[in-house]
Amino acid sequence: MEMTVGQIAALVNGIVEGDSNVKINGYSKIEEGKEGCLTFMANTKYEHFIYETQASAVLVGKDFVAKQPIRTNLIRVDNAYATIAMLLNMVGSMQQNRRGVEDPVYVSDGVNLPEDIYLGAFTYISKGATLGKNVKIYPQCYIGDNVKIGDNVILYPGVKVYHDCCIGNNCILHSGVVIGGDGFGFAPENGEYKKIAQIGNVIIEDNVEIGANTTIDRATMGSTVVKKGVKLDNLIQIAHNVEVGEHTVIAAQAGIAGSAKIGSYNMIGGQCGFAGHINVGDHNSFGAQSGIPKSVGDNNILMGYPAVNQIDFARQVANVKNLSRTNAELSALKKQVKELQEIIESKINNI
Amino acid sequence: MEMTVGQIAALVNGIVEGDSNVKINGYSKIEEGKEGCLTFMANTKYEHFIYETQASAVLVGKDFVAKQPIRTNLIRVDNAYATIAMLLNMVGSMQQNRRGVEDPVYVSDGVNLPEDIYLGAFTYISKGATLGKNVKIYPQCYIGDNVKIGDNVILYPGVKVYHDCCIGNNCILHSGVVIGGDGFGFAPENGEYKKIAQIGNVIIEDNVEIGANTTIDRATMGSTVVKKGVKLDNLIQIAHNVEVGEHTVIAAQAGIAGSAKIGSYNMIGGQCGFAGHINVGDHNSFGAQSGIPKSVGDNNILMGYPAVNQIDFARQVANVKNLSRTNAELSALKKQVKELQEIIESKINNI
Amino acid sequence: MEMTVGQIAALVNGIVEGDSNVKINGYSKIEEGKEGCLTFMANTKYEHFIYETQASAVLVGKDFVAKQPIRTNLIRVDNAYATIAMLLNMVGSMQQNRRGVEDPVYVSDGVNLPEDIYLGAFTYISKGATLGKNVKIYPQCYIGDNVKIGDNVILYPGVKVYHDCCIGNNCILHSGVVIGGDGFGFAPENGEYKKIAQIGNVIIEDNVEIGANTTIDRATMGSTVVKKGVKLDNLIQIAHNVEVGEHTVIAAQAGIAGSAKIGSYNMIGGQCGFAGHINVGDHNSFGAQSGIPKSVGDNNILMGYPAVNQIDFARQVANVKNLSRTNAELSALKKQVKELQEIIESKINNI
Repeated sequence: MEMTVGQIAALVNGIVEGDSNVKINGYSKIEEGKEGCLTFMANTKYEHFIYETQASAVLVGKDFVAKQPIRTNLIRVDNAYATIAMLLNMVGSMQQNRRGVEDPVYVSDGVNLPEDIYLGAFTYISKGATLGKNVKIYPQCYIGDNVKIGDNVILYPGVKVYHDCCIGNNCILHSGVVIGGDGFGFAPENGEYKKIAQIGNVIIEDNVEIGANTTIDRATMGSTVVKKGVKLDNLIQIAHNVEVGEHTVIAAQAGIAGSAKIGSYNMIGGQCGFAGHINVGDHNSFGAQSGIPKSVGDNNILMGYPAVNQIDFARQVANVKNLSRTNAELSALKKQVKELQEIIESKINNI
Repeated sequence: MEMTVGQIAALVNGIVEGDSNVKINGYSKIEEGKEGCLTFMANTKYEHFIYETQASAVLVGKDFVAKQPIRTNLIRVDNAYATIAMLLNMVGSMQQNRRGVEDPVYVSDGVNLPEDIYLGAFTYISKGATLGKNVKIYPQCYIGDNVKIGDNVILYPGVKVYHDCCIGNNCILHSGVVIGGDGFGFAPENGEYKKIAQIGNVIIEDNVEIGANTTIDRATMGSTVVKKGVKLDNLIQIAHNVEVGEHTVIAAQAGIAGSAKIGSYNMIGGQCGFAGHINVGDHNSFGAQSGIPKSVGDNNILMGYPAVNQIDFARQVANVKNLSRTNAELSALKKQVKELQEIIESKINNI
Repeated sequence: MEMTVGQIAALVNGIVEGDSNVKINGYSKIEEGKEGCLTFMANTKYEHFIYETQASAVLVGKDFVAKQPIRTNLIRVDNAYATIAMLLNMVGSMQQNRRGVEDPVYVSDGVNLPEDIYLGAFTYISKGATLGKNVKIYPQCYIGDNVKIGDNVILYPGVKVYHDCCIGNNCILHSGVVIGGDGFGFAPENGEYKKIAQIGNVIIEDNVEIGANTTIDRATMGSTVVKKGVKLDNLIQIAHNVEVGEHTVIAAQAGIAGSAKIGSYNMIGGQCGFAGHINVGDHNSFGAQSGIPKSVGDNNILMGYPAVNQIDFARQVANVKNLSRTNAELSALKKQVKELQEIIESKINNI
């Protein structure tokens, strides 16, 4: 998809500073810019790269004022980050243009395949499943009995959705995602653990993206719910009966134990762990590897295990690092007090 | 599966208090009870819900004494939790009634398919594999050469079992489980790592359940063993030559490094990590995110990294939280001692 | 593959001490040796087993001097560990002898299947993919558009490689590995998160092994790179635009956040987490469960969260354990100082 700098500027409502005829045939980060690439600079932390980049053009804000001469070509836009994201989406969506039903697939009797579907080979659709418009199901996926899939959904190769689960509109599920496996529920009985059947389901609302090999278990009863706009990274565990609130973002390898309720607009770092049955409010931020053993309100920035607010965490880390010095000071003071005591005993008590 | 309260009571040997003719068509947790639902109350922590639930009936213990008027219908049983579990199992097993061999499957020459099998489309059975009675293998599974699968086993869509591994009776493996991948074994040689072939296998004994996307590696030599009654949650890593003892329960995202031996009846929290080559006894409990660097006896409750017993852990956490105050006290004391010293120097030494 | 002790000795350039005619039909660790097994002793920590093993023969170093009588047969070699590894590789490679194209597979028009390929049933090859010599692709794999796969590569059942990614020569990818899923990139916009298309790819260089269910995300722009000789265990997360340097070894469930650059010859323990955008040098070692929030030089041994060098870590752990005693000492000292003060006040001030 080769375009000129001028054509791109026209597309994004930008203003060219430099040569509009230069050809662009790729995209890169500013520190990796090569000839023929378009890049962007949205954060002044990266400003020094703009003076040395080999990229053929750079998207920058309209208010950017160069402090040195610039050799590359600029396209000035209102929001450089949003603009590059839009361009990448355009390229990305051109790569997702599959259509039609491949052979072989297994489609149970009575399932209606919309005309505009992509159904990759070796995919399996169970009875009672319903599929929305403009759905792309890549090869080797499994759709269980009575599963509902909304419009504009993409399931990448190998996604597994167990029976009775629901996927909303505009969702993207990456390879290896498992939706609706049994929750981890067992009752002790005569020295063994007996399985408690998990007869609930999973509901994924609209505009949710789920990363590769993430697992979301079905509820024991009722539903495990991932609300609209949630973004889940890879290898995350969402246990049975959990609720994840709207627009919460969770990084890779985090885990949320059974029946925990996570509010909206939280940002959860990688490898965090949340205890079961707790309530987490809205607009919190959790540092990577945090452990959250109990309920949390709103608007906190928490870190560590057990998680405390980030200022306390930094203080704790510094205090612990300093403990050898603390111990040394304490020893010195003990010695000093002992000496004082000896002075007092030898002199004062003789008065 | 609509039943009346009276029919359910008859099924579970219960006694109705209220209207036996009320119809039940679903199950719920007590805090989410809706009309038509049966729920249960097994823990007095949830007692307040029983006075306000919208559920049409509640399973309770025979010894439960209400402190307020109850509007819903009760079914009194010996053990409310065991009874609801039994009912859910009944419903759950009705959802797992698939039977027959779908098309296409790949079954190697010489493999005998039992008459009562369910073999989902796109599943692959390699040569030498043996399959027990009443086995359900969902679509897109892979069964390697010489794999042995016992009776009443369920493999959900996409399970992969490498060659020579054994799965006992009554096991349930969820989607994305990988049994028998190569152990992580390499020998340094001339500045590179050379693969050590992993020619052992994995043995899963009877009554084991394994959660979605969990991985259990084959032994270098000999066997990685998961003993009877073990329950593994999702995304767990069991490395080569590990042994997990009977009825041990492991929560999601925990990992056990190579050659560790874990005893029986342990309860292991989510995201725990066990070092390689250690021995863990029986009946221990490990808090979530614990790190266990060395061997452990029996009957401990351990937490933290490196894991210590829970009382010490709580004390350590409190002490660390308190360090700023400790430091302040130490500073104040230093100042005080300095003042005393000055008094002594100025007055006493002049005596 | 039954051989005599003498035949094995000839194969490995070893010298027999004992009976060359004894038959070997299996391999074991020295502590698990049984009749008919060959085992090895490469570490004197295990020396006591050599005097009691039931194994029929033991590989030992030429310089090993027995301190007690030995009943088993010895095969003396230059390097017992390297020799057993070589023998296991021989056995292992005999188990990987599949060849030919099974039915059904899905191969897009224009894809050239090399003559010596193994292509398992239900595998899918997209258009533009290129496959090297002696490639084995097990059942149920997915190869995206324009994927390049080098020579002597093994993809175990269910590997998924998204479009435009490259796999070098001699790589082994285990079941459930996902290469090239979208990086986790979103831009906040009007209270929601908008997907940033991920249009880069993943490059896996030569001699890389990747464990089961590990995920490696494609770059936003440019490439996520795993350099030659890297060994990745199971369930690892490698985020978008990460680089992992040559011969770095990473244990299970570790995670590396976006754009982090990890150098060469690092050894990374299980469940470690690396922050995004940091630089890690060469030849470092990271203890299991470490959290690495910022850049690191070369040749460090680090542990804990936030990671510090192992000596400081041990000291911190000891100091924290000791805090109750520290607090008690501080209290005692306060009391002592108070008493001194009282003495001084009562006596001195009256002088």
